[in-house]
Amino acid sequence: MSIGVQRSVDTVIDILKQRLASRVETGMELRRQHANTVTWLDNEPPDAVVFGQSSEEVALVVQVAGEYRVPVIAFGGGTSLEGQVNAPRGGISLDLSRMTRIVAVHADDLDATVEAGVTRVQLNQYLRDTGLFFPVDPGAETATFGGMAATRASGTNAMRYGTMRDNVVSVTAVMADGRVLRTGGRARKSSAGYDLTRLLVGSEGTLGIITELTVRLYGIPEVTIVAVAPFARVADAATTTMQAMQLGGLGLARIELLDRLQIEAVNTYSKLALACTPTLFVEFHGTAAGLADQVETFREIADGNGALGFVTAASEEERRRLWKARHDAYWATRAAWPGRLALATDVCVPISRLAECIAETEADIERFGLISPIVGHVGDGNFHATPVIDPHDAAERQALEEFLARLAARAIAMEGTCTGEHGIGQGKMRYLEKEFGAEGLDAMRALKAAFDPHGILNPGKIVA
Amino acid sequence: MSIGVQRSVDTVIDILKQRLASRVETGMELRRQHANTVTWLDNEPPDAVVFGQSSEEVALVVQVAGEYRVPVIAFGGGTSLEGQVNAPRGGISLDLSRMTRIVAVHADDLDATVEAGVTRVQLNQYLRDTGLFFPVDPGAETATFGGMAATRASGTNAMRYGTMRDNVVSVTAVMADGRVLRTGGRARKSSAGYDLTRLLVGSEGTLGIITELTVRLYGIPEVTIVAVAPFARVADAATTTMQAMQLGGLGLARIELLDRLQIEAVNTYSKLALACTPTLFVEFHGTAAGLADQVETFREIADGNGALGFVTAASEEERRRLWKARHDAYWATRAAWPGRLALATDVCVPISRLAECIAETEADIERFGLISPIVGHVGDGNFHATPVIDPHDAAERQALEEFLARLAARAIAMEGTCTGEHGIGQGKMRYLEKEFGAEGLDAMRALKAAFDPHGILNPGKIVA
Repeated sequence: MSIGVQRSVDTVIDILKQRLASRVETGMELRRQHANTVTWLDNEPPDAVVFGQSSEEVALVVQVAGEYRVPVIAFGGGTSLEGQVNAPRGGISLDLSRMTRIVAVHADDLDATVEAGVTRVQLNQYLRDTGLFFPVDPGAETATFGGMAATRASGTNAMRYGTMRDNVVSVTAVMADGRVLRTGGRARKSSAGYDLTRLLVGSEGTLGIITELTVRLYGIPEVTIVAVAPFARVADAATTTMQAMQLGGLGLARIELLDRLQIEAVNTYSKLALACTPTLFVEFHGTAAGLADQVETFREIADGNGALGFVTAASEEERRRLWKARHDAYWATRAAWPGRLALATDVCVPISRLAECIAETEADIERFGLISPIVGHVGDGNFHATPVIDPHDAAERQALEEFLARLAARAIAMEGTCTGEHGIGQGKMRYLEKEFGAEGLDAMRALKAAFDPHGILNPGKIVA
Repeated sequence: MSIGVQRSVDTVIDILKQRLASRVETGMELRRQHANTVTWLDNEPPDAVVFGQSSEEVALVVQVAGEYRVPVIAFGGGTSLEGQVNAPRGGISLDLSRMTRIVAVHADDLDATVEAGVTRVQLNQYLRDTGLFFPVDPGAETATFGGMAATRASGTNAMRYGTMRDNVVSVTAVMADGRVLRTGGRARKSSAGYDLTRLLVGSEGTLGIITELTVRLYGIPEVTIVAVAPFARVADAATTTMQAMQLGGLGLARIELLDRLQIEAVNTYSKLALACTPTLFVEFHGTAAGLADQVETFREIADGNGALGFVTAASEEERRRLWKARHDAYWATRAAWPGRLALATDVCVPISRLAECIAETEADIERFGLISPIVGHVGDGNFHATPVIDPHDAAERQALEEFLARLAARAIAMEGTCTGEHGIGQGKMRYLEKEFGAEGLDAMRALKAAFDPHGILNPGKIVA
């Protein structure tokens, strides 16, 4: 870092301290916590952490930083998996986790407006007496709405309720020039001009910083049924999923696959006693009148593909326990191989290619001698192989890199994507041209240049 | 038009004739047919019409035109309502209606890839033996997929199945520099980089020309029930809609409102004998097991709001007839007031504001002495008042303009939008700043400048 750059950062920090006082912090521990802490990517701390409390404050930080060409990296729960919160060029980590106001709930319109730092758990607790809920549920319970929108997150409910792409109605965002933009109202649909909402959703803080969001809510279903179906082979579970999706009308809300290794880890971590074999966790939403028949139809499909059983959860508590275990799968994997690093991959393919993609990936796991549970939102064609490696073993690390490159290439060759829900960040920039071609990458670069000509918003990510 | 500009156009036409021969036409009648013919906006014909037959040909036309800074206006079915196909600065109307190839249907993945000139009717006929269908259904049966995507169209099924925003998986588009871009694969979700798909959907040919699309398909529901519910007052119908939406789980696929005047026009045009009072057309999709109960629940809600009746269609034929009548509502209005001009407005508001927005609009219709049926996709909060005026009567025209401005302002003030599904084109550019602020408009202008620096793609639209 040149002296001129360091002076600029120091000047920005001084100015912000005058305006925001103790909400500007420069202690190294806090700075490290505000960079990547979850994955194998290096921890690249910012020069300072600033806690913003309103859109106006975010605008102030962006304006001051912009004047001195100092990077600003938006920070929410810090749970991103591809280095989105790293500060490779230093700068300000703008922490929005204190923006936790639920601005409005419009039950009649099935929407809510929240500040960027609200978590899905917080919103759903707030909604608990309304009969409504917000469905998007990434693994991390501490993920914030701002971060979930910025990475276009999803989770287990996406097959029925969609991802953040589908569930963000509009956002308030601070743009690179410090202006505050509202991308729309609360109408359920609009064809008014360019879709700025969808442009900011998934842009990982590189085009603007989302400070407030209006999101869709849904009625809690009258009846929820959860079932567990073990299979001898992953392919049978995948085929079951595909056939059930095609048939449609079964009230399917979630279909999750856990392979044998993942079941073992989950059994230990969450104190379950599931059979150690590839297993589908399935959830059905519907009405009392029809749902039992629909579940029975699903069971028949599973049986037709050699299911080893089909057990429905007997109680609300058992349902919760199963889904908690599923959400903790990544942590279960980390706990099962302590001292090793668990890297959650994230490809998504057309569902007709899912069984093939998983089979080839399993063959690669064996070929490279890796340990890697597989878990997936298979109703969306999205799965996570999670290799656990010794990060200090150069050979393992190299095997992993080759495995990852082959996995991304495989998914893209199958008309899929290198990331279903984790985003690009730093970790997946290398695959973007393969997925979108030079034309696509150039279009994305043109967007970045148009919205952030001086490159101050989360530089070094997506299209750096 | 300066001599230099005219020479450029002539040169482009000469070059294209050498390459595409008889598919370059310059007859005035054809040129007029390729500009706005549906609404009150002036007919602004292009200098030539070119029929493209492939992405490569579209790229050729854009490259040649771009070299000489000649506008290129993509043209599909010619059914847009806001002057999207007009050529205010002349240039080439690039007609894609001969690109009618259904490239692939992936039944397992519930998607299809079609060329831009395919119509929804054509695709659904093609799919008729597969048990699948494509739901988005704008009024015009001749609307093409390219045009539907470019205007972010929707229709009666949007409340359940979403709009073109939700149902376009990815597109192939020719960009302003003539490069051909594919915005993604066929995975159901992705968080890979900026959402180029959603950026092109709704961009009305101003950022790129969509030549091919992958769209979502759905299983035809096991059971479909259609009902007609007349009310004494529009507000009662709107309240019924809101309450049914809130309850959720009723299998609602469409809720359409026709006011008294619209029912009269439809009765005449489609030879129906519906009671002349505000009426909901409702469609339910579901399974044999549960749907009857769900319909009954809806009927109780309607009764609670003073419904004057509730009749379900007895046969598939009757169902089709009702929906055909609904789709023909605009044409029924035109036919009911021959010689006058019917202008379909298109606001969309949060559903809690719908009754109020319609009531204020009705008051305005009376205040300005207008004739204006109202029809709407009320499940989405979207409605069309359709004033019929004598376009040669300056006073009526002025009353209309004021009515339109007040309608757009009203919807925007209610956190809605000036257009739910027709797009901006030329007709609604004046409302865009009110809806998105100067910040939003500037962001859209930055997008346009980034993607089309020389302004050759459909100039004079959206952000001109």
